[in-house]
Amino acid sequence: MATSKSVNFPRIIIIGGGFGGIQLAKNLEDKEVQVLMLDRHNYHTFQPLLYQVATGGLEADSIAYPLRKIFKGQKNFKFRNAEVETIFPERKAVSTNIGEFYYDYLVVATGSDSNFFGSKTLEHYTMPMKTIPEALNMRSMILQNLEEALIETDPVKKEALLNFVVTGGGPTGVELAGALSELKRHILPKDYPELDMHDMNIFLVEGSPTVLGPMSPQSQRSSHEFLEELGVKVLTSMRVASYDGDKIVLSDGNEIVTRNVLWSAGVRGVVPEGIPADKIVRGGKIQVDVFNRITGYDDIFAIGDVAAMITGENPHGHPGVAPVAMQQGQHLAVNIVRIINKEAPLPFKYKDKGSMATVGRNRAVVDLGKIRFQGVFAWFVWMFVHLMTLVGFRNKLVVFVNWVWSYFSYDRGTRLIIRPFNRQSMTEDTKVK
Amino acid sequence: MATSKSVNFPRIIIIGGGFGGIQLAKNLEDKEVQVLMLDRHNYHTFQPLLYQVATGGLEADSIAYPLRKIFKGQKNFKFRNAEVETIFPERKAVSTNIGEFYYDYLVVATGSDSNFFGSKTLEHYTMPMKTIPEALNMRSMILQNLEEALIETDPVKKEALLNFVVTGGGPTGVELAGALSELKRHILPKDYPELDMHDMNIFLVEGSPTVLGPMSPQSQRSSHEFLEELGVKVLTSMRVASYDGDKIVLSDGNEIVTRNVLWSAGVRGVVPEGIPADKIVRGGKIQVDVFNRITGYDDIFAIGDVAAMITGENPHGHPGVAPVAMQQGQHLAVNIVRIINKEAPLPFKYKDKGSMATVGRNRAVVDLGKIRFQGVFAWFVWMFVHLMTLVGFRNKLVVFVNWVWSYFSYDRGTRLIIRPFNRQSMTEDTKVK
Repeated sequence: MATSKSVNFPRIIIIGGGFGGIQLAKNLEDKEVQVLMLDRHNYHTFQPLLYQVATGGLEADSIAYPLRKIFKGQKNFKFRNAEVETIFPERKAVSTNIGEFYYDYLVVATGSDSNFFGSKTLEHYTMPMKTIPEALNMRSMILQNLEEALIETDPVKKEALLNFVVTGGGPTGVELAGALSELKRHILPKDYPELDMHDMNIFLVEGSPTVLGPMSPQSQRSSHEFLEELGVKVLTSMRVASYDGDKIVLSDGNEIVTRNVLWSAGVRGVVPEGIPADKIVRGGKIQVDVFNRITGYDDIFAIGDVAAMITGENPHGHPGVAPVAMQQGQHLAVNIVRIINKEAPLPFKYKDKGSMATVGRNRAVVDLGKIRFQGVFAWFVWMFVHLMTLVGFRNKLVVFVNWVWSYFSYDRGTRLIIRPFNRQSMTEDTKVK
Repeated sequence: MATSKSVNFPRIIIIGGGFGGIQLAKNLEDKEVQVLMLDRHNYHTFQPLLYQVATGGLEADSIAYPLRKIFKGQKNFKFRNAEVETIFPERKAVSTNIGEFYYDYLVVATGSDSNFFGSKTLEHYTMPMKTIPEALNMRSMILQNLEEALIETDPVKKEALLNFVVTGGGPTGVELAGALSELKRHILPKDYPELDMHDMNIFLVEGSPTVLGPMSPQSQRSSHEFLEELGVKVLTSMRVASYDGDKIVLSDGNEIVTRNVLWSAGVRGVVPEGIPADKIVRGGKIQVDVFNRITGYDDIFAIGDVAAMITGENPHGHPGVAPVAMQQGQHLAVNIVRIINKEAPLPFKYKDKGSMATVGRNRAVVDLGKIRFQGVFAWFVWMFVHLMTLVGFRNKLVVFVNWVWSYFSYDRGTRLIIRPFNRQSMTEDTKVK
């Protein structure tokens, strides 16, 4: 019987069911290994579309997919819904909230979390968006603050409820600011006829001189123009110096009163306990060699957002995007089998297929190497690529139906306050991840 | 300007945006009144499909609809997202968490909540399903207990995790038990190949001698047979005597170890503070006259589940179903205008269009007066009627797509643990409503 025989195959523990972990596990199907995936969620999250959940465009369930279902029928795969606590390399063990597990090979594919650059007040008062519960919290906060603005009589407090500040001009920040402005233009005037939508301001604060830093100058320029066309106030070469829950102080000394600070200013690796501090480099990532091996170990690997593969060619490592994680997952599957078979592993090479970002209806930017285009066609390409990358036919179908519906109706599906957000008691607990 | 003129029109406050409140407000459009609706949620919940959310068949967002959107463009309508605290009839005022509001006419359309018949332990340990957050809690509990069953080594504890007890053989209980059994048959074996699904038991406990008490004997018999075909153990003339979180004691002395008690055994009216206790009758409902007026007041009304219109013809009042609430809402709109115009109100007459319940794929029962049918055709009728009653074209479309998908794929969309449910700290707080 396959099951009892497989007990003697080497056991590979994968921590994390993101893009990298999934590709790795998939590519180990039919190999003579046992795969155990651990994740604190029982589902995979399609993070590139989280901003549409946060702004009421899509249901949470459409961009998530049960991990067990992804691996339905894969005989050498097991899943445990567990929170990893500590790695014990000397014992080849991983402790979790449901007990200890032993590995022959361990892969850290834990991804990244919001980076508040050490500020406890920013972490406390701003709203991050890296998980589905966080996106739902953000949706609730936006809608609850609009409800509150309706009944607020103090003009400064009302202004704070209607000012939205998005931090970080990467794809997430740009997409979030764009989606907010479409809410403001097409949806909120109908929902809140009592509010004057001219009072609602959307700011995008970016530290560097341009938005979409890693993209081409054309894409940077176009997306900046698109944002301004949509009424977003883009503040580049600007940082948030402080935020006390009511007022942002910017690096140039200017202030914005706001109760809505949507944090997408940076990410840092999620490193489990037990990885020595000297392996952790800039951005809280784990330094790996060209085989994704954590330096100093021959049985522990890291892939995706949490891994920093710093080489002469790539002094800053790879960008923190899904294709890097997916390619590293695929590649590591090959390498782990080679290592088990006592063959030399092959170095990882990233094939950059391009990058894209969307600002709003008919407004997106696409860089495919030397081929660059912006506007309507780019927007359709963006939608097509994202639909195709979504896991599961039902999700593709439901998202497609929603997008077609929104396109023709200028409407969005879903703006329910399902997880009421209590600002007064905003603690680690209420900010469920 | 219409707005300033309307300030002098009588103000009608409607507490609750359920089926009754919505029909009332809709039917007051273009009348010379101001309508203010108060609801603790910013959305209408289509309660008849909550069980599909709880069992992973539908997204929460597909069966809810933003209240503001329902009344988009209705000039004499305002909505406030507020929790009503107390009614002060002598001052014609309603106090809420966001301040006081004054009315000329007040309509209590607060619906019903789960009835635990005074038992604090049942309320504490069982899982109700009257709101979207509760349905999501139930979904999380079911999935978390299955995950736990996988790793539980104590056989009795494992049995408790795999025993599901649904209390109450009304439409909700029947539909929930049926949906659980379809999960067990078609979905869970693929998701949990490590669990032996024969160990999973589903019990339906009903106090009276038959399920679906108010329906025809044919429908009662068929639904009972359908449930047994699906493997549900139907225990009629049986009650839950006690439950301590681990073990149910039944009224015949038998015991079932279970961590999953899904409570649909009864409802009681949600009566705001300030309604005198002598107006409240059996089931926690408010006694109203044939004009839906609360006895003793000429400016306070109650409609729908919270109202008990007890007459010679109807000694038990009307059934707690959507059509009663909707018809009372429509009718009260006419009566309020008549009362404002100093005309005599007209007595309410319920037009019973029939009732239906579904047990599972191809298995439903329908009573339309003397016309009664069961099985596949009834199931299609049930789906058609529910689709048509859903608010909003997008919701109809998304639910339709999901149902068609499930029908052909024997699959269900969504089984994510998005609101992790912590049994240890199960308090009023974590049981968010």
